[in-house]
Amino acid sequence: MDIMDEINKLRDDRNWRQFHNEKDLAISISLEASELLELFQWKSSEEGIANLERVKEELADVFIYSYMMADNLNLNVDKIIQEKLSKNDKNYPVSKSKNSKKKYTEL
Amino acid sequence: MDIMDEINKLRDDRNWRQFHNEKDLAISISLEASELLELFQWKSSEEGIANLERVKEELADVFIYSYMMADNLNLNVDKIIQEKLSKNDKNYPVSKSKNSKKKYTEL
Amino acid sequence: MDIMDEINKLRDDRNWRQFHNEKDLAISISLEASELLELFQWKSSEEGIANLERVKEELADVFIYSYMMADNLNLNVDKIIQEKLSKNDKNYPVSKSKNSKKKYTEL
Amino acid sequence: MDIMDEINKLRDDRNWRQFHNEKDLAISISLEASELLELFQWKSSEEGIANLERVKEELADVFIYSYMMADNLNLNVDKIIQEKLSKNDKNYPVSKSKNSKKKYTEL
Repeated sequence: MDIMDEINKLRDDRNWRQFHNEKDLAISISLEASELLELFQWKSSEEGIANLERVKEELADVFIYSYMMADNLNLNVDKIIQEKLSKNDKNYPVSKSKNSKKKYTEL
Repeated sequence: MDIMDEINKLRDDRNWRQFHNEKDLAISISLEASELLELFQWKSSEEGIANLERVKEELADVFIYSYMMADNLNLNVDKIIQEKLSKNDKNYPVSKSKNSKKKYTEL
Repeated sequence: MDIMDEINKLRDDRNWRQFHNEKDLAISISLEASELLELFQWKSSEEGIANLERVKEELADVFIYSYMMADNLNLNVDKIIQEKLSKNDKNYPVSKSKNSKKKYTEL
Repeated sequence: MDIMDEINKLRDDRNWRQFHNEKDLAISISLEASELLELFQWKSSEEGIANLERVKEELADVFIYSYMMADNLNLNVDKIIQEKLSKNDKNYPVSKSKNSKKKYTEL
């Protein structure tokens, strides 16, 4: 069973798809991203990751809701990532963006 | 090449790992989640997903930064998802949570 | 005592300004905004505001951290609001933006 | 004219209150908080505040949407802040929380 199927099994066993419209899924992804970020509030990066169990859980929650939205929209996760990487590859030519943290609009 | 390798190739070709501390990656996941959410601002779920190309791109960005954090911490993405699903499965017994949108602390 | 003084008294009595760098204050504003948004997750607007006590608390937290950042930067809150309203007034001419939820870049 | 009136004039001149349900206002506060946070992405606090004009604008946007929500709910902003400060004052006794960044649940 692949990971999308495992996620769907959990929500379908509970009949949760009725609540999972994409707007509330987008809210949920944002909320879980904030719970992950909260682990770094008032802290250095090193202090944040010291709490590795919580980082794993909150990062997993971001993935789970993101997979749910992808499934709702019949999107192949690897494919949308590859398309975005391809776009980034063009927007950030190695010659201009190596060692730079500028946005492509500033390059 | 699996998807983590493709993501890493993009950032390593540009020598970007120097910027990718986990605190700023957590900030970045949160910012991308907001860009996804912005597509639903003042809109219904249906109006939001009508802009499917942008939804795909912003959702892909959430995945990309989330994979980068997982890679930084040597985490297996499927494994952390499975562990969280297993925890959710216990916190939300089907008998109590079917058709309910309550949090487990309220069940 | 005006409201900025009351907020500063709380943090100065606890000697908290040492932690309140602007990057972490920006993180904190974002986290509190998410806690406010969480009250509307999976809910209609009406269902969310029914929990008025929690809405008041989380909205107050957004204000408190926003005031703290303004104070750190010696900004007059009313003045920065007025400057932004003036900019919005120009970007959104009444003739074009009345009854429209479009962004000024789309007008 | 006080600041709430100035904010309301801008939105009422454009008849925007029809879009301003509290759920979308909460989304908007969160999105503006992210735009503020974005000014600190991959940066130190000092590097972020160097862009003071943008910080002022994004912070002002957080305040503007927060005031709009307060007005929608007939809340007095100073009063909800004072009530929350009073609660924080009790949750964080000076004797325990001075020089500490722990949450009250950890004190």
